[in-house]
Amino acid sequence: MTTIFGKIIAKEIPADIVYQDDLVTAFKDISPIAPVHILIVPNKEIPTVNDVVPDDEHMLGHMFLVAKIVADEQGIARSGYRLLVNCGDDAGQEVYHLHMHLVGGRKLGPMLRRE
Amino acid sequence: MTTIFGKIIAKEIPADIVYQDDLVTAFKDISPIAPVHILIVPNKEIPTVNDVVPDDEHMLGHMFLVAKIVADEQGIARSGYRLLVNCGDDAGQEVYHLHMHLVGGRKLGPMLRRE
Repeated sequence: MTTIFGKIIAKEIPADIVYQDDLVTAFKDISPIAPVHILIVPNKEIPTVNDVVPDDEHMLGHMFLVAKIVADEQGIARSGYRLLVNCGDDAGQEVYHLHMHLVGGRKLGPMLRRE
Repeated sequence: MTTIFGKIIAKEIPADIVYQDDLVTAFKDISPIAPVHILIVPNKEIPTVNDVVPDDEHMLGHMFLVAKIVADEQGIARSGYRLLVNCGDDAGQEVYHLHMHLVGGRKLGPMLRRE
């Protein structure tokens, strides 16, 4: 079941793609929560972190390299940024195609709202 | 320069280690912000995401596999969890040894405080 991210990766629907290679596609979030808000998405359709397998490790690690490259290109490598991956309901995962949020461009504050 | 995490990995100072292999060590955060709050740390001393290199990709991807394993062991695989990596000042990175926060066990709320 292809999600909206699968369609973006396949260029079937438009997005502001900032990076793409054989393993990973990165594009601007359409509802940014920070001055820089990029989604880094495996081209392979993996629903959640619960679904990763050892054969995915190289690709998953490559997501960090892409995060580093994109953060630099977006001018936030030195000021700092946060990477987030939501898995499942408690985290509020909205699209069931694994994705890493890269956010920065301002002071990001605490990691979680305290209960 | 070894940080406190380097000393935990080397068992020079105590911590509640929940997983360890040749590449990665995972232990409970001493100031948890959620019912489950585990740190997943490369055994290799990499200060930040800005310092990762292609040779690290397999290890970095392995961190996701370890997150999956630990989330399952902690009983939050189905309810959900969030993975976070802070890089630099704007994200509030406190220890300059790259680490992934695994948080869950409650509804986690928004990813960031809106400005």
